[in-house]
Amino acid sequence: MSTAELGLPVDVPSTALFTDRYELTMLQAALRSGAAGRRSVFEAFTRRLPEGRRYGVVAGTGRVLDAVENFRFDAPVLDFLRREHVVDDQTLDWLAGYRFTGDIWGYPEGEVYFPGSPILRVEGTFAEAVLLETVILSILNHDSAIAAAASRMAVAAGGRPLMEMGARRTHELAAVAASRAAYIGGFRTSSNLAAGFRYGIPTVGTSAHAFTLLHDTERDAFTAQVVSLGRGTTLLVDTYDVATAVRAAVDIAGPELGAVRIDSGDLLLLAHRVRQQLDDLGAKDTKIVVTSDLDEYAIASLAAAPVDSYGVGTSLVTGSGHPTCSMVYKLVARAADDEPLVPVAKKSMGGKTSVGGRKWAARRVDEDGVAAAEVVGSGPIPEDLAGHQLLVPLVRGGEIVGREPLDAARLRHIEARAGLPASATQLSRGEPVLPTEVLG
Amino acid sequence: MSTAELGLPVDVPSTALFTDRYELTMLQAALRSGAAGRRSVFEAFTRRLPEGRRYGVVAGTGRVLDAVENFRFDAPVLDFLRREHVVDDQTLDWLAGYRFTGDIWGYPEGEVYFPGSPILRVEGTFAEAVLLETVILSILNHDSAIAAAASRMAVAAGGRPLMEMGARRTHELAAVAASRAAYIGGFRTSSNLAAGFRYGIPTVGTSAHAFTLLHDTERDAFTAQVVSLGRGTTLLVDTYDVATAVRAAVDIAGPELGAVRIDSGDLLLLAHRVRQQLDDLGAKDTKIVVTSDLDEYAIASLAAAPVDSYGVGTSLVTGSGHPTCSMVYKLVARAADDEPLVPVAKKSMGGKTSVGGRKWAARRVDEDGVAAAEVVGSGPIPEDLAGHQLLVPLVRGGEIVGREPLDAARLRHIEARAGLPASATQLSRGEPVLPTEVLG
Repeated sequence: MSTAELGLPVDVPSTALFTDRYELTMLQAALRSGAAGRRSVFEAFTRRLPEGRRYGVVAGTGRVLDAVENFRFDAPVLDFLRREHVVDDQTLDWLAGYRFTGDIWGYPEGEVYFPGSPILRVEGTFAEAVLLETVILSILNHDSAIAAAASRMAVAAGGRPLMEMGARRTHELAAVAASRAAYIGGFRTSSNLAAGFRYGIPTVGTSAHAFTLLHDTERDAFTAQVVSLGRGTTLLVDTYDVATAVRAAVDIAGPELGAVRIDSGDLLLLAHRVRQQLDDLGAKDTKIVVTSDLDEYAIASLAAAPVDSYGVGTSLVTGSGHPTCSMVYKLVARAADDEPLVPVAKKSMGGKTSVGGRKWAARRVDEDGVAAAEVVGSGPIPEDLAGHQLLVPLVRGGEIVGREPLDAARLRHIEARAGLPASATQLSRGEPVLPTEVLG
Repeated sequence: MSTAELGLPVDVPSTALFTDRYELTMLQAALRSGAAGRRSVFEAFTRRLPEGRRYGVVAGTGRVLDAVENFRFDAPVLDFLRREHVVDDQTLDWLAGYRFTGDIWGYPEGEVYFPGSPILRVEGTFAEAVLLETVILSILNHDSAIAAAASRMAVAAGGRPLMEMGARRTHELAAVAASRAAYIGGFRTSSNLAAGFRYGIPTVGTSAHAFTLLHDTERDAFTAQVVSLGRGTTLLVDTYDVATAVRAAVDIAGPELGAVRIDSGDLLLLAHRVRQQLDDLGAKDTKIVVTSDLDEYAIASLAAAPVDSYGVGTSLVTGSGHPTCSMVYKLVARAADDEPLVPVAKKSMGGKTSVGGRKWAARRVDEDGVAAAEVVGSGPIPEDLAGHQLLVPLVRGGEIVGREPLDAARLRHIEARAGLPASATQLSRGEPVLPTEVLG
């Protein structure tokens, strides 16, 4: 796939500048010392879940593959690096020919994860693999944070549809990735046209308060909307008085009115009142959409209310209190020439230690098929776990092999979450629902 | 400026898809009802600051101007909208010719703001102005959140330099905007090469733990780095034992060693120990950089420690607990034909009310020149405030007139913050440091 095919709204000529400067200076020093060519294994993982969360959700893997494929140092980038004296000429020459030729394994997108899960494993020379650190972490840390929040909201919503509408609350391109991650986590639609364009996510939306205020009366606005968008449209009923608006809405659109939307006030109370009013007016099939600063707790609190769907903005795109995961990308093993891999790990005091060695991961299930533990190891894999391995090939010899439709990730997440112990989906704070066992 | 000149790492052929679908369906209905051409005034403002914050920082204005200039519906976008039946053919024809021809006024970038400050005022037909809502809010809500966190960190750091290094903790393009906002808020440098490329922000960085682990010994790694990057480089000293590393660092680089970096552990304790050790080794000019999960409070706690500069990642790019502002974009006045503007505002119960009318804003200062109140009004401006107006022209008749160098915004922020009462810069939670007075 060429960069142009990555599609609008943004054509990314290269992802190589989504990189911290120190990756390049390390490369320069390693080229000079001769260590740049050492076979290296990097792993992306978290040391903990956000406080109180019971599982994480892998998202962004597909975007990582796009980023790796487009990671190239073309002339304008090289000119910039030369002009700013970021690295020396030998390094610039090496960068000009860069493309990743190694292997990447990872948890497939939509899978759940736990502290220590090796979510992504990048293998290649140090030089090739170290450069990918920043962009890989940017993508996984952002997208997985959104998907985890989305998953909790989907659980809270039961079977009711969720609409992502947070574009205005986050960076305009983070918003597109957030729509994608939310879809993986269980959202059904998005307000974001760019997400529809780029990822085929179904888009929805009809009108805002401004449309009502623009017209001389609310009735004028409703009439204009129904004439133009049809009786199946969703009318926003909380600009002035809700009861008056609902009466006008049904009067104008008839009982075929698609839905009314409530965007402020006591949603529990209003949903009951509006449902009663709609029923009394004969609009028994008209749905109720609520969209006012919802999060998973507010959604859960409306479980018994006559609400048909939820729109979620701010709390979704900010990860519901946890806008980033704490994924890190660590060198866990390396080898000179043909020697065997040597596990390595930071060892100073201060808590930021990690487990060395190139790791496999598997999910142990109990006799009922319910997940019992996340098992991670760098030695041979126990026979009973060999069939439950979590890492799949994503890139082989530089060639992308792990692309899949977004719906595959969405379905995988539903299955993966369903395989966890029931307490995984409690909204209350708790410990990770699976322990992570590290085998030698 | 053409879209191509917007520069790498991302060429944005159009910002028009960074838009919620309902903006376009409202447009369609308003074109049909005839209200689309009504003169309209939209304002972006917040109803509150994030809890406990004493001032907000306007950032993103320059990016808003880029977005407005590139807001075009070209063939691939129109094809998408047609294929997905987002709007009808009449609306598509109208969109094909879209360009914003109205006026935009706003607080200049770097200025401080308070609840109710009309940070941006967009004037044009309803059709032209409503479409810009989503992208304007995306940019202002994200960038201002980062700038506000950056400003607090800059206050906490006193005169010590701050490095932005959060790219890996946020969406890869949000990271570039975050570097820009952090620079406006007072950061001096960034690890992010894309931010250097796109905005000319000075980039820094030398090496990570992986570089040390790659080599057979820490001494090998330090030697490789010093040989390649020079004695003025920054060596990372917390991979194994800090004291051993500092000894090796000075032994290898000599007293000309630029700096050592500490990325884990008890920073207060380590900074004192390392300073003492460096001094004892004769490396009195070697600086100490600390970079371990810092926020404004951790920075403040190191005020008395022998630290020379700070690197901040996660807490900066996530707005230090407040990753988004709560800016909204509201229709505040409109008029048919040549009639005078009519103030409008949502009025239902539920708290989401706003003040109608096209507003001016000014900052009242006391006899010592210290800011005393944010004054906002839609009537004639009192004479004593006329010289203290905050809104400046950004776009006139569709032409961008408000572009300025990033350093202008950075300097403006320092001045604006200095003009606030002293309690503005307390880190503790409190009320907005200025009251907002609304005149009729």
